[in-house]
Amino acid sequence: MPPDDLDDESVQQDRPPRRSPTIRTIAMPADTNPAGDIFGGWLMSQMDLAAGTVAALTARGRSATIAVEGMKFLRPVKVGDEVSLFADLVRVGRSSMHIRVQAWRRQREQEASEKVTQATFTFVALDDDGRARPIDQSGLADNRDQNAQR
Amino acid sequence: MPPDDLDDESVQQDRPPRRSPTIRTIAMPADTNPAGDIFGGWLMSQMDLAAGTVAALTARGRSATIAVEGMKFLRPVKVGDEVSLFADLVRVGRSSMHIRVQAWRRQREQEASEKVTQATFTFVALDDDGRARPIDQSGLADNRDQNAQR
Amino acid sequence: MPPDDLDDESVQQDRPPRRSPTIRTIAMPADTNPAGDIFGGWLMSQMDLAAGTVAALTARGRSATIAVEGMKFLRPVKVGDEVSLFADLVRVGRSSMHIRVQAWRRQREQEASEKVTQATFTFVALDDDGRARPIDQSGLADNRDQNAQR
Amino acid sequence: MPPDDLDDESVQQDRPPRRSPTIRTIAMPADTNPAGDIFGGWLMSQMDLAAGTVAALTARGRSATIAVEGMKFLRPVKVGDEVSLFADLVRVGRSSMHIRVQAWRRQREQEASEKVTQATFTFVALDDDGRARPIDQSGLADNRDQNAQR
Amino acid sequence: MPPDDLDDESVQQDRPPRRSPTIRTIAMPADTNPAGDIFGGWLMSQMDLAAGTVAALTARGRSATIAVEGMKFLRPVKVGDEVSLFADLVRVGRSSMHIRVQAWRRQREQEASEKVTQATFTFVALDDDGRARPIDQSGLADNRDQNAQR
Amino acid sequence: MPPDDLDDESVQQDRPPRRSPTIRTIAMPADTNPAGDIFGGWLMSQMDLAAGTVAALTARGRSATIAVEGMKFLRPVKVGDEVSLFADLVRVGRSSMHIRVQAWRRQREQEASEKVTQATFTFVALDDDGRARPIDQSGLADNRDQNAQR
Repeated sequence: MPPDDLDDESVQQDRPPRRSPTIRTIAMPADTNPAGDIFGGWLMSQMDLAAGTVAALTARGRSATIAVEGMKFLRPVKVGDEVSLFADLVRVGRSSMHIRVQAWRRQREQEASEKVTQATFTFVALDDDGRARPIDQSGLADNRDQNAQR
Repeated sequence: MPPDDLDDESVQQDRPPRRSPTIRTIAMPADTNPAGDIFGGWLMSQMDLAAGTVAALTARGRSATIAVEGMKFLRPVKVGDEVSLFADLVRVGRSSMHIRVQAWRRQREQEASEKVTQATFTFVALDDDGRARPIDQSGLADNRDQNAQR
Repeated sequence: MPPDDLDDESVQQDRPPRRSPTIRTIAMPADTNPAGDIFGGWLMSQMDLAAGTVAALTARGRSATIAVEGMKFLRPVKVGDEVSLFADLVRVGRSSMHIRVQAWRRQREQEASEKVTQATFTFVALDDDGRARPIDQSGLADNRDQNAQR
Repeated sequence: MPPDDLDDESVQQDRPPRRSPTIRTIAMPADTNPAGDIFGGWLMSQMDLAAGTVAALTARGRSATIAVEGMKFLRPVKVGDEVSLFADLVRVGRSSMHIRVQAWRRQREQEASEKVTQATFTFVALDDDGRARPIDQSGLADNRDQNAQR
Repeated sequence: MPPDDLDDESVQQDRPPRRSPTIRTIAMPADTNPAGDIFGGWLMSQMDLAAGTVAALTARGRSATIAVEGMKFLRPVKVGDEVSLFADLVRVGRSSMHIRVQAWRRQREQEASEKVTQATFTFVALDDDGRARPIDQSGLADNRDQNAQR
Repeated sequence: MPPDDLDDESVQQDRPPRRSPTIRTIAMPADTNPAGDIFGGWLMSQMDLAAGTVAALTARGRSATIAVEGMKFLRPVKVGDEVSLFADLVRVGRSSMHIRVQAWRRQREQEASEKVTQATFTFVALDDDGRARPIDQSGLADNRDQNAQR
């Protein structure tokens, strides 16, 4: 799943990826901001969880978010919406991982989805003392294939 | 997607359905019970949300849980687990819906999943005054097909 | 407190048991579903906590929910309602416990209550490794008497 | 239920009141402070909810906390404890109510309880614009009797 | 920062202290009571956190709330308000600390603030076994000066 | 408060700004991730709240996050830490606002702080229908001065 393909996906925003979502949840009243829409921080939290899922599978162990770039909020999320997050590994360094996340909302009683946010997260694999550790690169290609099919 | 097929799925418990999950989330420390495992009530909440997603799509409007049967908890869920819930519409009555839900856990750094719980929820479609209302049966077959492909 | 008595209680739904509730709490805005009513999953969580209280006292140690049968939701719960849960031990096996739970709502400014849900939970006593362990049967009769008087 | 009786109850701290609790709940891991004990603010919240229950029944409408006096924390509450709160109306003024609250903890697998906190809350009855309104004094004696028997 | 100064501050209620707040947060929809205002228990929790911050700095270790006196709620807090809490050490005993806390609300789009609550908390320094321990008095004067300048 | 000054501040990371924080809160056990550190999504939520406070004051009305750039996580936040967030308006367009946010942690019993994260948020002012609206530019200079002195 090369980055180029992901870029195309980002441009064509009329439907979500056909893969299984990394996270899929329902936006609840407890997640609203004072204006009554879903709180942006809640959505960032879900994106971080989605990226963390891919990071854990890739690093086969503990990891932490060190940076987020290009986070865009395209549309508000409403109470009751189904929110689906798709996280994709776009590059693996010695101990770092770049993970692209996009979120889509679907109104509870309808079938169409629309993209609500995207960002690129950087995670670093950590050892037990919290220091960067190398990622085992041997199984990564297989991992990505399996990820695409899940 | 006939009920028979679902029954088979329930017996064969070595892998989750190949469809997209209805809900997929990460079990967090805030969701634990006093013993440190994930609180059973949290899991029931996620199952209810998953069934409610199918009910909203089927009833095209408001609905409510009126019964749950055959809820089984097969294994504990641990902090950090990815929990995937699959909800399937098994029967639609005049205003009621029977929805089967199963939940699978996957340890954060591994690929294998195991089934943790299942139950059958009954929802009833409601009008604006909270009374049972008939469900439009015309689009249901299509709906089920689309649901299977999502 | 024999099961027969409990069955009668279930039929006569005009007033809650005269005993102390196992759990009694106030339904808050953070517990609502997208429709503005109290979320069914929240109510299931409270029921599980109530059953778990009786299980802990009976098993004198760790236990876990393994099944729930016959869960019925009779009426919606509204924000601000006082919700009282009554859990009763109906049968104890070698390592399992069957616990009946019913929940009643009372509107904040009124005195009348109405039953909102009921179910039968099965718990199993666990040892430190999470395996089923036998329950000490010697003190159970006393325990039930004390439970009724609390 | 005269205040004198309540004072005696406060002195004799070896067992909780024999009445039904106003609130009874389980202290969960999500309610802990950084030291791992149950957060004092959580306990204050439960006390406020308990006092608010009596205020709503007494004022037959909206009311608000305006003062708390004599709040004492006698012992820590631990994760898993059953916490029972007893709230008693001790005095009603034209639009104010003085409500005494005490909380007791019971370890999950034991029967003995110990008192953990007490305080006296003052609530004021409010009209729709949030201003103090008179409380209907006619039904208060009956109300207190019923409260004692619930 | 003598207590006299604090008393003056309490009387003059038209503007908050010019120091940095001990806690400053936004009141969210999840913190509301059934009437739609911010739940009093939430505000008490924030006050306890603010007092605990000063207690931790003063005792240089674990401490616990043992009493709260003179808690007054002057005005309701609304969803979206910025709530600023100021906690001041007013007296240190051998192992106890008296800490005055006041909370101010500011409507999200305006600059004026108004005081919403105040109380005096008593904390006690604890050792590892949860027993009262003496507080090192040597650095307290310096500590208070630094606190005032933060 | 020109952007240049802010850039300097970002480089010199040994102490937090001398101004009042926009948000200051305590990281609680309920905010942890499965590894036991404070969840990155919680920290992003606090940053969004801090930026939103400046946006509300600047736009004198409703606004929404549309982008986040350059989010860096420099160090983990631990349970019990005091977390202080400083948000600064760096540029105002016709309807957009660029707001720089930095977060600092202070261990509960110590005085030194260290920077944990920073990012630049873009908000857009919204009208009642959720469409971009112009920001009244007349009072902005004054506003920034007052903000710096709070």
